[in-house]
Amino acid sequence: MDPAVPEGLWDILPARAQKRRALEGRLRTAFEARDYGEVISPSFEFYDNLAVETGTALRGEMVRFMGTDGRLLALRPEMTTSIARVVAQRLAREDEPHRLYYIANVFREHSSKQGQPREFWQAGVERIGGGSPDDDAEIVLLFIETLLAAGLKDFKVGLGRIDFLGRVLDKLELGGEEKDSLRAALAGRNLVRYEEIVKRLDLDEATTADLLLLPGLSGGAQVLDRAEALGERRGGSEVLAGLRQVYEALAAAGAADRVILDLGIVRDFDYYTGIIFEAYTPALGAVLGGGGRYDNLLAEFGYDAPAAGFALGLERLESALAQGGGGR
Amino acid sequence: MDPAVPEGLWDILPARAQKRRALEGRLRTAFEARDYGEVISPSFEFYDNLAVETGTALRGEMVRFMGTDGRLLALRPEMTTSIARVVAQRLAREDEPHRLYYIANVFREHSSKQGQPREFWQAGVERIGGGSPDDDAEIVLLFIETLLAAGLKDFKVGLGRIDFLGRVLDKLELGGEEKDSLRAALAGRNLVRYEEIVKRLDLDEATTADLLLLPGLSGGAQVLDRAEALGERRGGSEVLAGLRQVYEALAAAGAADRVILDLGIVRDFDYYTGIIFEAYTPALGAVLGGGGRYDNLLAEFGYDAPAAGFALGLERLESALAQGGGGR
Repeated sequence: MDPAVPEGLWDILPARAQKRRALEGRLRTAFEARDYGEVISPSFEFYDNLAVETGTALRGEMVRFMGTDGRLLALRPEMTTSIARVVAQRLAREDEPHRLYYIANVFREHSSKQGQPREFWQAGVERIGGGSPDDDAEIVLLFIETLLAAGLKDFKVGLGRIDFLGRVLDKLELGGEEKDSLRAALAGRNLVRYEEIVKRLDLDEATTADLLLLPGLSGGAQVLDRAEALGERRGGSEVLAGLRQVYEALAAAGAADRVILDLGIVRDFDYYTGIIFEAYTPALGAVLGGGGRYDNLLAEFGYDAPAAGFALGLERLESALAQGGGGR
Repeated sequence: MDPAVPEGLWDILPARAQKRRALEGRLRTAFEARDYGEVISPSFEFYDNLAVETGTALRGEMVRFMGTDGRLLALRPEMTTSIARVVAQRLAREDEPHRLYYIANVFREHSSKQGQPREFWQAGVERIGGGSPDDDAEIVLLFIETLLAAGLKDFKVGLGRIDFLGRVLDKLELGGEEKDSLRAALAGRNLVRYEEIVKRLDLDEATTADLLLLPGLSGGAQVLDRAEALGERRGGSEVLAGLRQVYEALAAAGAADRVILDLGIVRDFDYYTGIIFEAYTPALGAVLGGGGRYDNLLAEFGYDAPAAGFALGLERLESALAQGGGGR
């Protein structure tokens, strides 16, 4: 028998496993310092539950199989939906907010096998209950604390609001497909493609100019001032006001130098409704992880509560640390 | 969407998760004290590799699915075969013996859903290279140390040789099916059924008497003396001599009071070739875990080396600890 593993899967041998467990220990310490408790959930669940709000792309990447009970099952492609299901199924409202964390493997199947991992590890938190700007700030602060605890020094956190783009697009009465392609171009940070799509929409000059402003709304507090006029013209002023409160809470906690406000951020998941954020480090070409607010996901399981959280990729964190991201 | 998990799966909430991680930490300490290093391997692999020597029963319980590359994949039903594959694929002969451990989830699918877990956790070790009685004793000692480190006080380890039964049965020229049914009855500790099968075989009186002796060959060092005559009549004397050496090494290490010699032990896996052992505690109706020597498994992956190891079920360990197994 040929001793080999399928493409996209890796073994972690003792020297690396020891470092991995040490990294996990540092992450646990950061999570538990803010009173988050661990949840260990099953690796596979009912496909319908996992698919509830994960977005089309991720749904297509799930590893599916039929259980002996004739139910369609899938390996979890991420943990947020499982934690939402756990809360709705097992936890009591009077104990809110529920502060939960996980360090778990997730699974994705790709039709093209170009080095994409089919199994990888994520560490993350979910805070169920509490939807104020201060609650948002708590999550972003913990995100920063977690990256620092991991040993990363040279990183920035991009912070935006998924619903700012939503409000602007809603006002334009574009078709669903057009909105989706704009979102996809932004999510992929493909600004050339974004400009192409905007220009092809054949909108009036002022609207085109406003849409082209969006991806450039990135930087310090002054971004909010620049966005204000756009928000007033196109909708989204109250979204900006909320974001300003979160930013001010972060600044008050001394974290302003870590944060880049960015109204062009779009993340891969459909369930986000408010703030969204991502971590970048020069040592790594990819996003280290990210998160945001998802106030509608829990209601899908019959437990209506605001929520926010984040996930970090352990392999990406390890790459960043190995490539000197911890060095400066 | 109904927040539920498929039968046979469970969530571990924070209070239990914290205890679980603490238990894992104690097991790690025990493994690492004897210089075992952790391996983290993929949750799924090529079905053909996982199925290589796991036995028909376990093969039927594997969760299988087709990869996008058209290869049949399966979630691992146990870890020993994966570790054997890792060693053959990635480790060098000159570094033998390889002392490896894992704390990992494994997956089994059952056609009848009677509370059997479809995902559960195992902690175990594999020692690749070294096939002497002292090497056997090292593994059994570490098994005992691990149970003590877990916090268990009231337990015994049954120790036998899978090949003693094999030699005895080989001499009888029984059919494969008859041998398998005798083994299965012993593996299930179903002594009534074992006696039925033996009597139905219609052998001469002396042979029938000898076979009926087997399940009763259980106890202290005197078991080896009682088995000796049987071994000489039916084959297996040198197997008994090897077992005596292991027992003496364990006694010299002060572990004799933990060990019950038992020549009727049969374990569920096909790959065992020499010593086999299991842990029992009065607090639990089921075996806590076990292991043995498997000198032919590595050769299936083109890396011919003797090997031995064990696995403990974390959920069973937790039940035993919760039910007072740690109390005496």
